[in-house]
Amino acid sequence: MKLGVFTVAGGEPHVGRLEGDVVLDLGLGDSVLSLVQDSGHGREVPVSEVQWRLPLPVADYVDFYSSLEHATNLGRMFRPDQEPLTPNWRHLPIGYHGRAGTIVVSGTEIRRPHGQRRAGDFGPSQKLDVELELGFVIGKPSRLGEPVPVERALDHVFGAVLVNDWSARDIQAFEYVPLGPFLGKSFATSISAYVTTLDELTRVPGVTQEPEPVEHLRIDNFAYDIPLELELDGEVVSRPNARHLYWNVAQQIAHLTSNGASLRVGDLLATGTISGPAETERGSLIELTWNEGPFLQDGAEVVLRGAPLGEVRGRVVP
Amino acid sequence: MKLGVFTVAGGEPHVGRLEGDVVLDLGLGDSVLSLVQDSGHGREVPVSEVQWRLPLPVADYVDFYSSLEHATNLGRMFRPDQEPLTPNWRHLPIGYHGRAGTIVVSGTEIRRPHGQRRAGDFGPSQKLDVELELGFVIGKPSRLGEPVPVERALDHVFGAVLVNDWSARDIQAFEYVPLGPFLGKSFATSISAYVTTLDELTRVPGVTQEPEPVEHLRIDNFAYDIPLELELDGEVVSRPNARHLYWNVAQQIAHLTSNGASLRVGDLLATGTISGPAETERGSLIELTWNEGPFLQDGAEVVLRGAPLGEVRGRVVP
Repeated sequence: MKLGVFTVAGGEPHVGRLEGDVVLDLGLGDSVLSLVQDSGHGREVPVSEVQWRLPLPVADYVDFYSSLEHATNLGRMFRPDQEPLTPNWRHLPIGYHGRAGTIVVSGTEIRRPHGQRRAGDFGPSQKLDVELELGFVIGKPSRLGEPVPVERALDHVFGAVLVNDWSARDIQAFEYVPLGPFLGKSFATSISAYVTTLDELTRVPGVTQEPEPVEHLRIDNFAYDIPLELELDGEVVSRPNARHLYWNVAQQIAHLTSNGASLRVGDLLATGTISGPAETERGSLIELTWNEGPFLQDGAEVVLRGAPLGEVRGRVVP
Repeated sequence: MKLGVFTVAGGEPHVGRLEGDVVLDLGLGDSVLSLVQDSGHGREVPVSEVQWRLPLPVADYVDFYSSLEHATNLGRMFRPDQEPLTPNWRHLPIGYHGRAGTIVVSGTEIRRPHGQRRAGDFGPSQKLDVELELGFVIGKPSRLGEPVPVERALDHVFGAVLVNDWSARDIQAFEYVPLGPFLGKSFATSISAYVTTLDELTRVPGVTQEPEPVEHLRIDNFAYDIPLELELDGEVVSRPNARHLYWNVAQQIAHLTSNGASLRVGDLLATGTISGPAETERGSLIELTWNEGPFLQDGAEVVLRGAPLGEVRGRVVP
């Protein structure tokens, strides 16, 4: 199922199920997670008539760093004389909390953020970038103090979205030591207009994890075979696939809750930038241009695509 | 005003105003921010009969790093051969997003978190610590793409709470490069049972900021004179004061929104650990014991106090 929240002609928000080019109206609501039961019937609205809204109010937003190739590329760029991966990378799925309140639906214009690009030098970001990611939406909560076993972690996942984790590389570079990214990411994160339930995704075996993960992260590795596209101003500039991700979402949930932290309905767990082994499979401009640019210009339109998840679209405005 | 959410004998949550040793019942509600108008009359309940709940559902939780002495102490400990402050520290109020969903009310037991203390070594944290902080609750939202001017930032603040940002130093040390703290902090954050409105705080001139901040952070520096206590198992082990903080909350709001990020009602902005110039004014055990420990044992009871904000209490359980 593909579930979103829509309005027609400025009316009240309704939950709807996308079926081809019609949306089946499932009744009033501002979150796909509030849907008690999909009655399966309701008025049909042509998709051309609906305005999509954010499909759910996001509770906590966590962004992981689960592509080996992405983490290796960034390590090579920024720490050329060291091992590209930090010592923790293969032992746990690194992640951090992002800003839930600035998650916007596909189609929302993205205003170029200002920030300190160097000490005292405040102005518009000159290195505005995209990050092509998947995100998993939590539909079933867990209790504080009770870690979720990795084998049962998928029971907590409602579905998946595409994510564009817009990033201002210059702002991020100056601010991120020692507490991680903040304003370089928090200005906006775009997600697709509807959540696709997991049963629509094609599950495949994942890459071999070496060394073997610690016990509570141990599970036959898996991934989702989702061919992705990164389109910039009408031209596809990269074609990664989610099947290359090193850490899987079950491990991310087991890790996130291993210290007793709880999940809430509406939490969003994103994968981090998805890059593949080939140069044509890099999910960000900083990797595609090896930090030389060009980055996003004003007016640039970025579209991320990945069936069956749909697309995430956004245009940069000054 | 001191506003909290309480129940009596397991009933429905009500918003209440604390007046001495009675709570004035202001009607049904689970957030002090939902209070439309304080009618000023209602039944009086003896404070001994109420059970406090979380005073509001927290939207986004941001933790700053605004004590010069705290940041200097940690820099000296972990990077003894470098400048203790990172190059960005005096140019912007460093902060990061924490986990909003695991914020709990004073009195909640804190389960010792598990995590990887070194590569592959998973078990209970052996360096469980406290962080004595203030937190500011946002009561008025701002719009995406519209930075809040520093002179008007306080208009967005509803009130203040005390915060214990429980920290597992061993888990944090292994995980935090390059994306910042995650599981070392996310297991629990305790806040005081009621929010105290800003008019009850004593505002004083702040320390001199050198160099002068960039234009959008420029304002006569101020702080709040709040004498604090960190009590461990019945003994006061430290007495910091919030007046020593280097960055003020107006600057933090101006910084947070300077990239266009919006504020939501219910956002919580914490100061980071508050340490003063003297050795008796350090707001965490890692500073008080210079990373030698002892850290928190099972059964330890920690109470943070600071009039007029009340207290934050928590006991460590295995």
